[in-house]
Amino acid sequence: MNTLTTQLQNTWHGEIPISKEMGVHVASFGNDVLTVRAALAPNINVHGTAFAGSLYAVAALTGWGMTWLQLKTRGIDASIVIASGSIDYVKPVAEDIVSVCEFDTAFHAPAFEQLIKDGKCRLPLVCSIAAKGEEAARFRGDYAVRLNNAR
Amino acid sequence: MNTLTTQLQNTWHGEIPISKEMGVHVASFGNDVLTVRAALAPNINVHGTAFAGSLYAVAALTGWGMTWLQLKTRGIDASIVIASGSIDYVKPVAEDIVSVCEFDTAFHAPAFEQLIKDGKCRLPLVCSIAAKGEEAARFRGDYAVRLNNAR
Repeated sequence: MNTLTTQLQNTWHGEIPISKEMGVHVASFGNDVLTVRAALAPNINVHGTAFAGSLYAVAALTGWGMTWLQLKTRGIDASIVIASGSIDYVKPVAEDIVSVCEFDTAFHAPAFEQLIKDGKCRLPLVCSIAAKGEEAARFRGDYAVRLNNAR
Repeated sequence: MNTLTTQLQNTWHGEIPISKEMGVHVASFGNDVLTVRAALAPNINVHGTAFAGSLYAVAALTGWGMTWLQLKTRGIDASIVIASGSIDYVKPVAEDIVSVCEFDTAFHAPAFEQLIKDGKCRLPLVCSIAAKGEEAARFRGDYAVRLNNAR
């Protein structure tokens, strides 16, 4: 892991303690794709598969992490809050939770322009969790970003 | 707490270990209103308020718990899976998380009739989390219920 992803994971574990209990960690980041993992065991449910709340939390953190990384790589000092989130559970996850978020630079460019211009923007992101090679859950999050020390 | 709510909380803590780490517990159940609480400390985020993933998880458990209680009180043996969930975060929660789910017997009656007739049904439920006396988050979950040992 590079410095940024280490810093992201330390932020999660240090400031969002339940993320550490869930075993959430950054698996990789490159080419605008962030992959986040969490072991199944601490996130198991009554059916022996991944708890719906954990799947949502891992995906929501993945989107938050992607936003955080995009801001850091642009040298923008801003705070991130999730405004809304939704998730469809397509099939049970009976393995470690792996959440992937792809960032589309062209699609999101206007949002970053607005952030610089107005001091705030909304960033819609999609995260996907696969199981046995197929999509098992699809998360959509709407992240509200606001410049720190905005004029 | 009565026997059923004790059994519900034991199910959560025994079979969904992260719910115990989150400190999720049943506060009360009566007149078709279920109230679930979780302390703020284990669910805190980078802003010092409740983590969005925890708010979702507590609300999703409240809806699951309401479904479980309604099935138990009707003597129906069925399994419950959440099919989809969405949440709007209206304002930050800087206090213990309190999630409330109200069950509308008349509204949900057709779903239970379908469950007995077809062996399965969908139960849409809304859970609300308040902070400082105002709604801070609103959750909508769609629960898929299926009779065990259906013919």
